[in-house]
Amino acid sequence: MIETPYLLFLGDAPDQLAAKVAQGIKDWRPENAVGQFRMDGCKADLGLPDLGLAEARAAGAKTLVIGVANRGGVISQEWKKVLVTALEEGFDLASGLHNLLRDEPDLVAVAQATGRKLHDVRVPEVDYPIANGVKRKGKRCLAVGTDCSVGKMYTALAMDAEMRARGMKATFRATGQTGILITGDGIPLDAVIADFMAGSVEWLTPDNDADHWDLIEGQGSLFHVSYSGVTMALIHGGQPDALILCHEPTRPHMRGLPTYQVPTLEELRALALQLARVANPECQVVGISVNTQHMSEADAAAYLVSLETEMGLPATDPFRFGSGKLVDALAAM
Amino acid sequence: MIETPYLLFLGDAPDQLAAKVAQGIKDWRPENAVGQFRMDGCKADLGLPDLGLAEARAAGAKTLVIGVANRGGVISQEWKKVLVTALEEGFDLASGLHNLLRDEPDLVAVAQATGRKLHDVRVPEVDYPIANGVKRKGKRCLAVGTDCSVGKMYTALAMDAEMRARGMKATFRATGQTGILITGDGIPLDAVIADFMAGSVEWLTPDNDADHWDLIEGQGSLFHVSYSGVTMALIHGGQPDALILCHEPTRPHMRGLPTYQVPTLEELRALALQLARVANPECQVVGISVNTQHMSEADAAAYLVSLETEMGLPATDPFRFGSGKLVDALAAM
Repeated sequence: MIETPYLLFLGDAPDQLAAKVAQGIKDWRPENAVGQFRMDGCKADLGLPDLGLAEARAAGAKTLVIGVANRGGVISQEWKKVLVTALEEGFDLASGLHNLLRDEPDLVAVAQATGRKLHDVRVPEVDYPIANGVKRKGKRCLAVGTDCSVGKMYTALAMDAEMRARGMKATFRATGQTGILITGDGIPLDAVIADFMAGSVEWLTPDNDADHWDLIEGQGSLFHVSYSGVTMALIHGGQPDALILCHEPTRPHMRGLPTYQVPTLEELRALALQLARVANPECQVVGISVNTQHMSEADAAAYLVSLETEMGLPATDPFRFGSGKLVDALAAM
Repeated sequence: MIETPYLLFLGDAPDQLAAKVAQGIKDWRPENAVGQFRMDGCKADLGLPDLGLAEARAAGAKTLVIGVANRGGVISQEWKKVLVTALEEGFDLASGLHNLLRDEPDLVAVAQATGRKLHDVRVPEVDYPIANGVKRKGKRCLAVGTDCSVGKMYTALAMDAEMRARGMKATFRATGQTGILITGDGIPLDAVIADFMAGSVEWLTPDNDADHWDLIEGQGSLFHVSYSGVTMALIHGGQPDALILCHEPTRPHMRGLPTYQVPTLEELRALALQLARVANPECQVVGISVNTQHMSEADAAAYLVSLETEMGLPATDPFRFGSGKLVDALAAM
């Protein structure tokens, strides 16, 4: 668990896109973002106060989060100076970079000397159990996709925000590095040892109030041969009561697999529901979330109407049209 | 890859069952088993020559394989003396124990000093790729089960033996620790990082001759919520051309999951075939392997006949009645 709130380190980001992790934190958990720290040449700006390390500490920030991709896969000496000073000023560090903070001897030495923590959110920090399949209290919703990268995390975060706004009991449950940095907690499922995948999802979504919803971040796709085992573990470990189908209708083939066709939403519905009912016979498919970014607004609206007719399910693009319909469907269960 | 042939270390095995890994090696790869090494009080006997370390080296043995479970989860001082001497005599060591050889400082020190290898087959030794889903040459057969521990490894080993006896091109591909020790090679799939599971199976079953069959050891079950993700990775990474359905008809519930029912063979056939065809549209279910150990021979034979009628597939218990029918089915493809 990463201590919040954060100071968001943007470093020398070459453009706004490079700071998308920091942007996600600011968009979804603004209360976690005390300010931003930018170095000379930084081309990203989140519109947050530019704070020095001491100022941010005084404002309550507990962790410096690396919210930016690094160039060339190395943690540069310029970054190092800031990171070392942050540890000395009392910050923990959190990072989703491929190169791990714990592999940098100078950072490890300073962290040990100062008693601060280095969080590499790509690496599990917990010894997860093997799944036991025992039915848990409370309700769970999982987003499943026809493909990878079709908006599953966005859908769950948008539903979580809408449910909180309505006063419903809801918790977004992160299963990937960006989600973990946004919320400060979660499981890096793609880095978990095979035997413990489903158990880690059970651990992430424990017993809860009967009217509480866990909104579990999806990963991969049942139809993506590289990652389908991870998706399966989410479906069986998560015991979802509700599934949201996620889709990107303009994709020519499965992501990274040029000879694999994207399945239809009907195929996804049938397969995901059959598998989910192994762990939870009451599971239902309750809605469809479409990433329409490559369609005009008129085309997107028409497509959603046609989907609703064909599939008999509420359909929306949560980014364009909000997640209200999906939350209505959960509330009606 | 573990160097063969082996000297099989039976230690102070309290009974024959404790030496089942060694028994598996002797049964399935007798050419890998130069002899057995027994300590005082050993109650297991494989019927192999009892050899001292120097004798076994002289007879060509390259690796001392720990073919026995240890008591209380510790590597005892009595074992240590033998293992250290074996390293000094020029043996590599191989083990599937939960406590790793590499975590024993004295063994590590002697192995380094003598230039010998310590193989802990529970731990991956390769950086596997992410699966790319590209179609590979040659043919692959995968055993899938209604539950865990229904005879998938036995089925694949029996088919491999029968195919070799017939002069067919076949390779058993181990995906668990016992299989790895039997053959000297394979992937410890349950210990692979989630993102690389399917890629490790692709790595294990590369391009081959058009008439060559990989017989892939199955793991888990699509219907076992603790391990289904591992099974999924085998189905999508293995690209099987042929599936064998494995079943144990007397089991009251899924192994370790008292509230989960064992699916029918019809349910397994439909689900496994649908999933396998994502990666290989030509995949077929070709036969059924039943573990009938808890049935009389007459009941077993009658059950197999009824299954053949109901399912329209050849059915056998390879332990009782041989794997010939299953190999016939592969040969006919």
